[in-house]
This record gives sequence, structure tokens and C-alpha cells, in this order.
Amino acid sequence: MQKIKVVQYGCGKMSKYILRYLYEKGAEIVGAIDVDPEKVGQDIGDYADLGRKTGVVIRSDADAVLDECKADIAVVTLFSLVSDCFEAFEKCLCRGINVITTCEEATDCRTTNPALANRLDVLAQANGCTFVGSGMEDIFWVNMVAQIAGGCHRIQKIEGAVSYNVEDYGLALAKAHGVGLTPQEFERQIAHPETVEPSYVWNSNEALAAKMGLTGCRKTQKCVPYFDEKRVYSETLGEWIEPGNCVGMAAVVTTETFQGITIETQCIGKVYGPQDGDLCEWKITGEPNTVFAVGKPATVEHTCATIVNRIPSVLSAPTGLVTVGELDEIEYLTYPMERYI
Amino acid sequence: MQKIKVVQYGCGKMSKYILRYLYEKGAEIVGAIDVDPEKVGQDIGDYADLGRKTGVVIRSDADAVLDECKADIAVVTLFSLVSDCFEAFEKCLCRGINVITTCEEATDCRTTNPALANRLDVLAQANGCTFVGSGMEDIFWVNMVAQIAGGCHRIQKIEGAVSYNVEDYGLALAKAHGVGLTPQEFERQIAHPETVEPSYVWNSNEALAAKMGLTGCRKTQKCVPYFDEKRVYSETLGEWIEPGNCVGMAAVVTTETFQGITIETQCIGKVYGPQDGDLCEWKITGEPNTVFAVGKPATVEHTCATIVNRIPSVLSAPTGLVTVGELDEIEYLTYPMERYI
Repeated sequence: MQKIKVVQYGCGKMSKYILRYLYEKGAEIVGAIDVDPEKVGQDIGDYADLGRKTGVVIRSDADAVLDECKADIAVVTLFSLVSDCFEAFEKCLCRGINVITTCEEATDCRTTNPALANRLDVLAQANGCTFVGSGMEDIFWVNMVAQIAGGCHRIQKIEGAVSYNVEDYGLALAKAHGVGLTPQEFERQIAHPETVEPSYVWNSNEALAAKMGLTGCRKTQKCVPYFDEKRVYSETLGEWIEPGNCVGMAAVVTTETFQGITIETQCIGKVYGPQDGDLCEWKITGEPNTVFAVGKPATVEHTCATIVNRIPSVLSAPTGLVTVGELDEIEYLTYPMERYI
Repeated sequence: MQKIKVVQYGCGKMSKYILRYLYEKGAEIVGAIDVDPEKVGQDIGDYADLGRKTGVVIRSDADAVLDECKADIAVVTLFSLVSDCFEAFEKCLCRGINVITTCEEATDCRTTNPALANRLDVLAQANGCTFVGSGMEDIFWVNMVAQIAGGCHRIQKIEGAVSYNVEDYGLALAKAHGVGLTPQEFERQIAHPETVEPSYVWNSNEALAAKMGLTGCRKTQKCVPYFDEKRVYSETLGEWIEPGNCVGMAAVVTTETFQGITIETQCIGKVYGPQDGDLCEWKITGEPNTVFAVGKPATVEHTCATIVNRIPSVLSAPTGLVTVGELDEIEYLTYPMERYI
């Protein structure tokens, strides 16, 4: 048995968990990439509190790192849109390195960016590797919902409400959620943009529909700003958000299908006040009606644990662009990771 | 595409749902077996409210029905213990007819009745067919729990609490739960029997542990009687249960494993009062702590829908005795059943 060699591409908040989880599950971390001058040069053992120096240092020269480290898989934790991550994906895939990414659009980008989806698929296939977008949505917004649907006889509608604290995901995500904007700015920049950026649940709805054999016929997305009665401090922005300004937003994505089942998921991302917690609530209307929920899910930890537990099923997947609904079932890694491949 | 031919073996409460679900999902019901003289001779269209006569009549001569109907699969809904159902299983398997059963012990009977488990495995393999125990536990006590475990980094303990109304499952089950017994009778007949009958969650814990790659090292089961403050009427028994007597019981099964993860599941089966509803609550202690629940699950409908949605994955499974944790993922049947095989 050989250890699985992993390169961490993007050393932001999520990577601290992912690096530790990888380390504790017996992966061999062979490289780490980030362009932030404050991180470059740090040993990942220090950066992710592994309790010892590893000798693997965060570097900014992605091409050199990828050429030198001979990784089996890259964990790419950079941005939410495929177009923003594409260069990084390409660098990995063209070297035959499998990719698993937290890029939310990558959950199923075949309708939101079909051109890049196709290029990723071709690149991965041509180089004998696999490209997968995973994270919180993998189990909790896609596979769990499809599985519980398997306990129902007849389904008319699937409704979900999920939320997360934008403070946990860095500056890019906070800005995409309109944090700190005035209502007018939100209306102009987020509510009716020239090009609609897909909400995370657009892509997870797509993956869920595909997994259930449903064909979308009409898809809509509405973005609604969220406000708080009190001023809220955003650590990510480093500033207070006054009551009149936006603490985040809800995107409601409705996916109607030719098979008559509607999937409507509300995705709430905002700066939490002291009483808030994450949501993950689902309701199936049909026979029987079914409600299920994860209570205040630890979205960051679940995202990172899912990414790490997913690695064996990515390595055994067919080549090309694959969605989490098409992978083998995820497993809790009871043993060190190499035992699973 | 050929319709899937199904024989219903046992026409109790569950079969009314299963027959209708099968019919509505496009299965071909080719036979129905029950020994109850009140049911024998009824058209299943009348029996299961299908809205028309089907020409398929409930008959008591199991051998003749099975010989004549050339079924792909039998849905066996008889008793909770494998030993009580074995003759029926054998009649199907020896004819090469696949079996899916609601027999709760059959969820994973390899530790509770290894001799019969082995005979079922040999019989099924010798005749090129598959034997599976499924029902409520399939998704909600086994596969959902294992899937959500895949979103955790480290697990110390998995705790579950599930419940059901014994009124929904007929007389045999009510008696096995001590309904109507005095505390003394419960203590003598159920709490410390000469041979311990496995609680349903013993077998589902086994299936869950096996699915997660865990090896049980110590297993215990405690049975605790349940009482109600008010007298409760049991339709199944056709009598009132006085406050001092037992309305059901909780079985707590603790499965300790060599890998250090403990699974402790509490299975509450009792005659419900007007405020009661089913429970399906789970808690994972680890990183991160995770709680999830299905709100008042419709156990009967989920059991029957799961059985029907499972049929394609049973028909495509390897031959022999297979547990629900080993089958392909369950799917909601979006299309008529024959499209899935």
C-alpha cells in the first residue's frame, strides 16, 4: 500500500482543516500553494497546527510545485466560480493530477458554465484523471436528499433551506454575498447583475436532479438581501455593518423538471449574530411527506471532512468531469486512507 | 423492457401499501400468498384498493402460487425473526426467486442466526438469486447514518433513537414488544428470556458497523418496558391496556467495535397515545459533533416505499445473502420500475 500524495492548492481558512484531516488520515502531503506573501514560506506543520514541522513549505510558484511533487490529487480551495479557478484546475489536470475542489459551482457546472465544464472534462479525460467539486453540498444538499427520496413512494416537491456564516469563507465569498452593501448597491450589484452568478444551490440542485434522473425544464434564481436589526461586526471585512446595510443574502433557486418534481432550495449566507447557527433543513412533499434536518451543522468541518473522505472515491472514479452524485458512496475513513484504494 | 414480476408473500398491513406502490410504479404483480381465510380468495385490486380487479387472487397454497407465477422477486412480509420466515424464504430461493423481506432480523442476521444466514446464502447462491432484508432500517438506520458519517473527520460514538407504533405492524410484533403484559410478565418473558431475541437495532447496528468497516467486539442488549400514565387502547390486541401494564418496550443495543467507535441505538416500540409520533434521531460524537433527525417519520410508508424502490438494486445485486449496506445506492424510482434494470 502506498500513501496517497496530496497537494493543497490554496491555503485559506478551509485548508487549515483539510491539511490536518489529511495528515491525521494518513495522506502524504507533498505540496502546498498560495500566493499570499504572509503564508509563503511557512511550513504546513506550523500553518495547520500539525504539531511538528513537515518540511513541506507553502510556495507561490504553482507550476514548479506541481512539477516537483508528483501528487495523486490536488485539493483546490480557491474561489466559488469555475472561471476564477480554471487556471489552477488546468495546471493540475494537464499534469494528470486528479482534482477535488471546494469551488461551489463545480458541484455541477454543466449548465452554468458548459464551455468550461466541457474543457475540464476533455482535459481530465485526455490526461487520465478525474475532476470533482465537493464540500458541504456533496452529502448534505445532494446525496442525503437523493437517498431519503429513495424512502418515498411519490414526490411532488423537494424544498431545502441551508445557511452558512460568510465569516467562515474569506473575503471573496463575503463580497459575493453583498456583505456591507447598501440596499441600493445590493439591488444593483447582486439582485439584477448583467450576468447572473449561480448560487451554490443552483449547482447542487442540478447535481441532485441529475442524480434522481430528473431533467430540468425551467430554472429560476432570486437573490434577496438580508439585514440585521443591530450592527454586526464582520471579521472578514474588518468593519462594522450598520443596521441599514446588508449582512448577506438568500438565493432561492427553483428547478422545475419535466418529470413534475420541483426542487426549491434556499441558500442563506450572511454574517451571523451571536444566536445564529447553520441550517440544513429539507422537506419532501409527496407520499409520505418527509422532513429531515441536520441541527446547526458545522459546515466548515463537514466541508473539509467530506473533501478528505471523498478522496478514495475520486481516485477510483472514471476519468473526466464527474459530479458527487455520480461517484461511489462516500465513506467515513475508518482506516488510514491508503486502505481504501 | 420487461415488467418486473413480483409475488407478494404475506398479505398483512404492510402489503396493502406495498401492493399499491408496486402497482403504481409499474411492477407486474403475479401472485399473492396468505393463509388467513378472510383474505384468501380476494382480488389484490380489492384488497389493496387499486381501483380495479387485477385477476390476481390471494391464495394460501404457497408452493402452487410460486410454481405458477414465475416471479422475478418475492416481497416477503411475514415475521420479525428469520427462523419464523425461513420456510417461506426457502420456498422462494429454491425456485430461483429473489427475496426482499421486511423481516427485521434479516437486515443482518449473520451474528444473530449464523446457521440460517449461511443456509440462506447457500440457497440463494445455488439458485442464482439474491436475499435481502430491507425496510425502514435500510435508509434511516443504516445507509443514511453511514453516509452522514462520511461528512465527519473523527467519530467516537454514534447514538440513535428510533421508534414506531406497534399498532402498525400486527399482532406478532405487538406480542414481541410485551404489549399488555404486567411488569412481572415483561420481566420474565421479555427482559431476561432464555434465548435473547435480537432487537431490530441489533441487526441494523450490525449492518451499519459492517458498512463502515467496523468489527464488533462487544454487543449488549437491554430491554426496558414502557408504561403510559393513562389507559391506552390497542386496536391490534383489541383491548385496553391499563396504566400498570406495558404499552411496549425500548431495546438499547450497544455495539462496541475494535476500531473504537461505539454504536448505541435505542429502539422504542409501543402503543402510541394521541400525542406520540415516530422518532428517528441520530447523534455523532466526534469532529464535528453532528445531530440529524427525520421528523415524525411515516415508518409504514417509508418501509414500504423503501422495499419497492429497492427492487432494482436487489435484482442487480450479486447472488447470495446481501445486506442493504452492500447493495447499490437506493434510488427514488422516477420512472416505471423496468427502466432501472
